Amino acid sequence: MKIIITGGDGFCGWPTSLHLSNLGHNVLIIDNLSRRSIASALQYESLTEINAIHNRIAKWRELTGQEILFYNLDIAHDYAPLKEVVSSYNPDCIVHLAAQRSAPYSMMTVEAGNYTLSNNVLSANNVLRAIEQHDRTIKLVHLGSIGVYGYEDRAFEIPEGHTEFSSVDSNNVEYKVQGQIPLNPTSIYHLSKSQITSLLNFYSQNYAINITDLYQGIVWGTQTTETRMSSELSNRFDYDEIYGTVLNRFVVQAQAGMPISVYGKGMQTRAFIHIQDTVKCIETAVISPAANNSEVEVMHQISETRTVKSVADHVANLMNAKIKQVVNPRDEEEEHRYILANTKFKALGMNRLNTLGDNLLDEIQNVVSKNLHRIDQSCIAPKVKWGKVVEKQPAERERIAS
Amino acid sequence: MKIIITGGDGFCGWPTSLHLSNLGHNVLIIDNLSRRSIASALQYESLTEINAIHNRIAKWRELTGQEILFYNLDIAHDYAPLKEVVSSYNPDCIVHLAAQRSAPYSMMTVEAGNYTLSNNVLSANNVLRAIEQHDRTIKLVHLGSIGVYGYEDRAFEIPEGHTEFSSVDSNNVEYKVQGQIPLNPTSIYHLSKSQITSLLNFYSQNYAINITDLYQGIVWGTQTTETRMSSELSNRFDYDEIYGTVLNRFVVQAQAGMPISVYGKGMQTRAFIHIQDTVKCIETAVISPAANNSEVEVMHQISETRTVKSVADHVANLMNAKIKQVVNPRDEEEEHRYILANTKFKALGMNRLNTLGDNLLDEIQNVVSKNLHRIDQSCIAPKVKWGKVVEKQPAERERIAS
Repeated sequence: MKIIITGGDGFCGWPTSLHLSNLGHNVLIIDNLSRRSIASALQYESLTEINAIHNRIAKWRELTGQEILFYNLDIAHDYAPLKEVVSSYNPDCIVHLAAQRSAPYSMMTVEAGNYTLSNNVLSANNVLRAIEQHDRTIKLVHLGSIGVYGYEDRAFEIPEGHTEFSSVDSNNVEYKVQGQIPLNPTSIYHLSKSQITSLLNFYSQNYAINITDLYQGIVWGTQTTETRMSSELSNRFDYDEIYGTVLNRFVVQAQAGMPISVYGKGMQTRAFIHIQDTVKCIETAVISPAANNSEVEVMHQISETRTVKSVADHVANLMNAKIKQVVNPRDEEEEHRYILANTKFKALGMNRLNTLGDNLLDEIQNVVSKNLHRIDQSCIAPKVKWGKVVEKQPAERERIAS
Repeated sequence: MKIIITGGDGFCGWPTSLHLSNLGHNVLIIDNLSRRSIASALQYESLTEINAIHNRIAKWRELTGQEILFYNLDIAHDYAPLKEVVSSYNPDCIVHLAAQRSAPYSMMTVEAGNYTLSNNVLSANNVLRAIEQHDRTIKLVHLGSIGVYGYEDRAFEIPEGHTEFSSVDSNNVEYKVQGQIPLNPTSIYHLSKSQITSLLNFYSQNYAINITDLYQGIVWGTQTTETRMSSELSNRFDYDEIYGTVLNRFVVQAQAGMPISVYGKGMQTRAFIHIQDTVKCIETAVISPAANNSEVEVMHQISETRTVKSVADHVANLMNAKIKQVVNPRDEEEEHRYILANTKFKALGMNRLNTLGDNLLDEIQNVVSKNLHRIDQSCIAPKVKWGKVVEKQPAERERIAS
């Protein structure tokens, strides 16, 4: 297959590009290298050294003989060249991963929030538009976030995609509607992903584009089969307060002899997946059309749910580290039920994804111990704070007689 | 009260500005005059002559002694000056009307669609952000569209805002969720409005901003009490295929001796409201806080629902005109049930809005007959076509073994 991967230079995009290329697919990456420029601006660099994109690609060609094409494009703003690349390459599938993907980054400053919203929404719209304009049979795989549901206490299993709801109107007429459970994003990043959901629905319903939307959990790990082939192919390893996900941060802290910092009670439940499974799930979505062209196929790309505390305990036990509870920088439920349906990938043959018990921490420890000299301890403590404003009482303004 | 009106130079914005100013409120308009520049670009001008914004405002000052302030800003892109105006004026309320508001325009070209989406979504986000940053007690009134629900056949009454839904998960656990009925926009314009819904929800839930979202029907009529005070205050009257709403188009056709053109069967049901009631409803929303700060108050700003055919019959009878059925340029349901809850404005004392039977057609006829020489008959026939792509069968691509 011919596959375009937007965001193919990023943390999920790069190993996905190599994985699909290794399987013999033709891969074309579109990326504006924004993850690199944001890392420079924040001065929070990857623990692993990241090769320049052209060198990465050259190394891959040298090792495998496979050619990965690359275009540096800002797809949020440059629709015409995006359309031109799609038209001339004429892919079978576009894997749309290009996004500003950090929730803390999106809540850091007004500028970062507005950038995240416009970048993510406009990029997705331009990709959909290019498909609609060039060839509506191009399959689209989008990488969403399981975080769009929010994290309130829920006693039921959150369905993958549409389910049936019943209600009664004011005339006592019973009725049924099909839809997702209401999304409840709690960061601008997750808000942008929930807005992309409505974009995907629109293009699917109106233009019969075949779309799979992968609601992914928190990714852990660094390397995949392909990125391990050479240090010059190494994937990113972010451990800072903004881009570092919880498990990677914990391992760095333990390895550096710091206490593992858990935000608040640590009973927040989150979904997790290993980067090796991310690339396999994306591959599966690429080769498996959504069941029909007029409804987006939502799939939960997760292997397990765990409390943050249980992740911390696991790392602390393995690495003989201490746990330190820190003030939660986010106003969030610190204890809640969170049950996610998770059958669609299994139905496609992905029966066994990696979990935290699978000794894959060795790989992270290995990455961290090789790069101990590069650890910047000052980038771990959370500085970005956000959350709901507490005053929820009715407005005090008086109604003024007209 | 001090009120900022974004889009205050537009068809709903200008009479709203005058109405609120006439009641003694202090009004500041922010507008980039895009409705004027789009009209010039399309060469579809208002039937009424529209005075330059500074002249309109000067005339209003001369007649009433009331000062309306004006800032020319592109609020989709110029966040910093918007924030500066909000901070220095320090309003009690922002009425956010600024938007590209034509569905046909949004479906006309790729550029017009992308412009509509980015302009409307980013403008709303910037207004919300300015409130959040300056003073979260500023009340926000947004003008949405009743069209976000779509027009499929529905046997039940569509609730105003949240209602309770029940479902059963895969483990047979029954559960309830609160939410709106799923939105089903059928144009990029309506898609932008459905995306603004999720923005409003986010800012309301996370920052306790008091928000009323008015889902408005199709507006008919031209003048209000205030715009009638002088021809130099005249409101727009659009009758073209892109910006002309159905009733206004029919009256122009009848007055010009053309047959009234009905798209398809004409049994499409739509909601209507007269411009005089639009300004009163907005006033009511301005002075009536939403019931609470963490849930957007959705109100249906409509006076009646009617089929397009019944509107055409009404105009044809009154004006002794013929009706001509034309090929529907939109792929849409041409016959469907469409029942809208409509109690919230009544609860606020707005018991009797104007309907088509209320002789208000005289006013339109008057406007049209005074401007007969300005009618451009060539701008009425629909040229923009859109709709669902019909091929809805499952994708033909084979699953490729990995």
